[in-house]
Amino acid sequence: MNHKNKHPRVNPIDLSENATINDIAEEFSNSGVFGAGRIAKAIDIYTKMLDKKATVFLGIAGALVPGGMKKIITDMIRNDMVHVIVTTGANVTHDIIEAFGGEHIRQVPYTSDSELREKSIDRIYDAFVADESFMKLEDKIQPIFQEIYEKHKDSNNVLAISTRKLMSLIGERLEDSDSFVRAAFEKDVPIFVPAFGDSILGLQLWLFSQMKKIYIDDMGDLGEIQRTAWDSDLAGAFFLGGGVPKNYIFQSRLMSPKTFDYAIQITMDRVETGGLSGASLEEAISWGKVDQESHMITVVSDVTIALPLIYSATLSRLKGG
Amino acid sequence: MNHKNKHPRVNPIDLSENATINDIAEEFSNSGVFGAGRIAKAIDIYTKMLDKKATVFLGIAGALVPGGMKKIITDMIRNDMVHVIVTTGANVTHDIIEAFGGEHIRQVPYTSDSELREKSIDRIYDAFVADESFMKLEDKIQPIFQEIYEKHKDSNNVLAISTRKLMSLIGERLEDSDSFVRAAFEKDVPIFVPAFGDSILGLQLWLFSQMKKIYIDDMGDLGEIQRTAWDSDLAGAFFLGGGVPKNYIFQSRLMSPKTFDYAIQITMDRVETGGLSGASLEEAISWGKVDQESHMITVVSDVTIALPLIYSATLSRLKGG
Amino acid sequence: MNHKNKHPRVNPIDLSENATINDIAEEFSNSGVFGAGRIAKAIDIYTKMLDKKATVFLGIAGALVPGGMKKIITDMIRNDMVHVIVTTGANVTHDIIEAFGGEHIRQVPYTSDSELREKSIDRIYDAFVADESFMKLEDKIQPIFQEIYEKHKDSNNVLAISTRKLMSLIGERLEDSDSFVRAAFEKDVPIFVPAFGDSILGLQLWLFSQMKKIYIDDMGDLGEIQRTAWDSDLAGAFFLGGGVPKNYIFQSRLMSPKTFDYAIQITMDRVETGGLSGASLEEAISWGKVDQESHMITVVSDVTIALPLIYSATLSRLKGG
Amino acid sequence: MNHKNKHPRVNPIDLSENATINDIAEEFSNSGVFGAGRIAKAIDIYTKMLDKKATVFLGIAGALVPGGMKKIITDMIRNDMVHVIVTTGANVTHDIIEAFGGEHIRQVPYTSDSELREKSIDRIYDAFVADESFMKLEDKIQPIFQEIYEKHKDSNNVLAISTRKLMSLIGERLEDSDSFVRAAFEKDVPIFVPAFGDSILGLQLWLFSQMKKIYIDDMGDLGEIQRTAWDSDLAGAFFLGGGVPKNYIFQSRLMSPKTFDYAIQITMDRVETGGLSGASLEEAISWGKVDQESHMITVVSDVTIALPLIYSATLSRLKGG
Repeated sequence: MNHKNKHPRVNPIDLSENATINDIAEEFSNSGVFGAGRIAKAIDIYTKMLDKKATVFLGIAGALVPGGMKKIITDMIRNDMVHVIVTTGANVTHDIIEAFGGEHIRQVPYTSDSELREKSIDRIYDAFVADESFMKLEDKIQPIFQEIYEKHKDSNNVLAISTRKLMSLIGERLEDSDSFVRAAFEKDVPIFVPAFGDSILGLQLWLFSQMKKIYIDDMGDLGEIQRTAWDSDLAGAFFLGGGVPKNYIFQSRLMSPKTFDYAIQITMDRVETGGLSGASLEEAISWGKVDQESHMITVVSDVTIALPLIYSATLSRLKGG
Repeated sequence: MNHKNKHPRVNPIDLSENATINDIAEEFSNSGVFGAGRIAKAIDIYTKMLDKKATVFLGIAGALVPGGMKKIITDMIRNDMVHVIVTTGANVTHDIIEAFGGEHIRQVPYTSDSELREKSIDRIYDAFVADESFMKLEDKIQPIFQEIYEKHKDSNNVLAISTRKLMSLIGERLEDSDSFVRAAFEKDVPIFVPAFGDSILGLQLWLFSQMKKIYIDDMGDLGEIQRTAWDSDLAGAFFLGGGVPKNYIFQSRLMSPKTFDYAIQITMDRVETGGLSGASLEEAISWGKVDQESHMITVVSDVTIALPLIYSATLSRLKGG
Repeated sequence: MNHKNKHPRVNPIDLSENATINDIAEEFSNSGVFGAGRIAKAIDIYTKMLDKKATVFLGIAGALVPGGMKKIITDMIRNDMVHVIVTTGANVTHDIIEAFGGEHIRQVPYTSDSELREKSIDRIYDAFVADESFMKLEDKIQPIFQEIYEKHKDSNNVLAISTRKLMSLIGERLEDSDSFVRAAFEKDVPIFVPAFGDSILGLQLWLFSQMKKIYIDDMGDLGEIQRTAWDSDLAGAFFLGGGVPKNYIFQSRLMSPKTFDYAIQITMDRVETGGLSGASLEEAISWGKVDQESHMITVVSDVTIALPLIYSATLSRLKGG
Repeated sequence: MNHKNKHPRVNPIDLSENATINDIAEEFSNSGVFGAGRIAKAIDIYTKMLDKKATVFLGIAGALVPGGMKKIITDMIRNDMVHVIVTTGANVTHDIIEAFGGEHIRQVPYTSDSELREKSIDRIYDAFVADESFMKLEDKIQPIFQEIYEKHKDSNNVLAISTRKLMSLIGERLEDSDSFVRAAFEKDVPIFVPAFGDSILGLQLWLFSQMKKIYIDDMGDLGEIQRTAWDSDLAGAFFLGGGVPKNYIFQSRLMSPKTFDYAIQITMDRVETGGLSGASLEEAISWGKVDQESHMITVVSDVTIALPLIYSATLSRLKGG
């Protein structure tokens, strides 16, 4: 039996000092195993999703804006590489804070978290945000809520609004071209925030709701994402972390006759605890969320390492083709 | 320098074949390091929380009902060991399914997830649930939604209801004494489900909303949990996994002058990705969610291993005392 | 289709304040899924290994003596629950240090590792050991090396000695009945240390070797462990962590016609990196280390939590039966 | 307080389709947080190590040759980017197998590990190796052992040989220019294999030792690596995974007055278990292995993703400078 003729070799990765993103993708593909092989497969699947005109649902969990992923998400939107976004409240909060002139900082020396508290600096692992950035959010978002309320309230002075619509109306009012909330507004990419109340932005809305009657129309969100999922001939899921966005995207096609045709997840969560965040994509077959013909890959990696590689290599293939 | 006099020894854990939960807790405490030491410290902190009459906020993420944790959560409620619950939609969905006669099963042999799909069995790592259990949910929850709607709708035929109230009204209608949703109703422990739409129960409500006007009153939930947090002299957080429940609980005291005085988290998520699920409790000091005087511990473990030990050892101390 | 009749339920874990190790094992078994289910299965397999009189090979990696596991390992030896030990050099070093009156300590307050360095205290996560404990090792082990050398050197004044024999000769000279090196000597349980040079004990032997000609007879070790593996009708592997001990045990039966019949591993390492420490036991089937009929389970847990439970519950069954 | 003036921003990573390894390194550096920031810091530290002419000790654990890392290790040797290697036996075994015409393969379809066993294919997560490759090793390594034995045995027909010397003599006899064992011979980079017996290569030597008297001179290895460490003005440690290589490298400077001045580790192991593989580099300060002035970084990543990036970006800086 000669395996040479039957199975491809693991070709050792060979990179020079002049390596381009293309070289990296190609070498990872030629090796084809372990983490590098999975990055390569994710690039293949993402390229295929886009080539086949699948509707791409992007799930965003974790602190990805403080983690420096904002511009890539924005570029994915602007380059037609994502068509529906589901995110935790934190990521839109952080994006809007930056759009309002707040910022995420790094290299803050500290000896204890108590010291940070005294200095009014909040820590997100090794990224930081000053309390004053949250104050900017409060200053600027309340008038926006007011404006949206006045314009869209019903005859009983009640505003019931889906997060998808609210995010679009907020995006319309942002002036930061790097903001993914702004970019999504411009490209009419819906942003769903299923746990909107679970964020500083949600707390700000709660403050506003102390004066005016306002409801989040969660059912409206559910209806819209399911319609989009139903109407998509082909659908691809791209999960940055797990959490609510992963489940919300996967369940969007549960009532449709179709499954997700493509799925990529980048996660550091483990499969053995039984939680959905770390669950294998294969498990999703049993639920009818994907099927055995679906193309899917799990990349076990910090998102801030894997996403830039997958994004820029996929973009390179699209532009090259 | 003689360390014997200054620092306690790591006393090797010494267990016999007759070990009781008390012996295990004591031996873990005498050793005091690594995972065992952290279990012991969690027992100490949980005991202290309850001794001091702190309001205990329990966060429930992951698939804990399929993972066999339902009865312990119910017993925690019945034994006055938890006073506020924040959970993902999945855990209430699974609890209600069991209350309706559905069940979670195990030891299902299978060669592929496709085979499971054909057999209409859904997999949650090594636990399983048959599609028919979800059908039972649909059959029985729709009339309950209808009944609640008729009873609580306003004069415009609109029902705007917080998840906290909805869960209580559902719990009132369950007949399973092992159900934690039922137990919470009986003991008037509020259950908040910040991402209610992100679950099969949420999809069922969406189905219902196609016929009747219904809103989830997320702002009402936010108001109530913040009032409870504000009114608590002492507050303790007990996180089973991370996700939305962790953040939602921690933010409940953000607008209050007080921080959480106690915090326990059991998680397998990592700290290095920057996501909140795996974030250290120390990081929460910088945000003013806990302070440096707070008692806190992170147990890195599968919840299904650590929670039974922590619960029964704490109960033993309470009953013993 | 009625699953009730076909598959067992996940029975929610139900523990009282009087729970014994037996109750815990039984409840974990009745639940049967996720981490708790795997602890239960490990207890079953370990019980079966011992009932069937399999030769039990125990692999010990990680800092388990500083982690408080010494007494359990000693008791496993004394209760005929382990018959061959393969360990990293660190674990025998730490065991011998304690036998010489050194100690592992905890609850050492420190603000930085530099401060610990100044105080001559070495940190092992949240356990600690003072430099003076290593000095005790040097003071007492050198005369033992000298004594062993004089007694066992050959006619050319060369001592070539296997680690298995060296550990036995050292164990003979220890007076601490809690020491697992001592217990192994008393019960004639061989201890193999394949990377002996990779430890403080190894450095001490190197110091001694500057004066006297001494070789570690690695080939002698390899021969003996393979003979033991070959001669065992049934063989069980019990891995505490991965590393060299896991591979060394598994390869001991590679040249024999038989595979390991039972295997338990407790590890926190991941499967996806391709490293052996986190590799699934199923993978070992492809290598002929175990076969498809073998009983095996991986428990994803901190060893200091899972081992005490598995050990005392198994002991309980053995004594009860 | 204006943080803008005090702390750098997290600059969102911005990559185009033409990104080069330089761009990636620069963008990761400009972002500076989470995983991407740590990759950037590792590149900085590795560049500094080499600029300052530090002796670079490379630790290699895990299945890195099957994982496609062979050529990069070889190139690191040929480009004077590594000066001492400590490895598990597996990695030299796999390297020599490939040098002898064996190969690692991928994309082997299988439904069970039993099926692989029947086909005589061994699995390493998603890489594979045929039994015939191990037969090639046996065929070709035994004559080499014989040749080395005859040439280097002493007057009593005993060969006592350090792994460092053995690896060099084997490397001299390999004809594969991609082999890192060959490259190390050519560049006179010592390779230490502290647990030599714990590998297929070790088992082959054991087979040979059944006919001829042969000892591994572990003490010789310990002496040589300590001399090299002592003689190095500046020393840098670069750990690919943990295990024996990490500890062996760190202990090489324990008896010297100096610590390691630079340290990089790429690992997926966790810190909380107390094992050395996942231990923080800061902990090493308490042991005097590094000091507070040392430059160090831990990258939590699959090695096959992080190493190619770190290597090629560092090479780019060196060639560019």
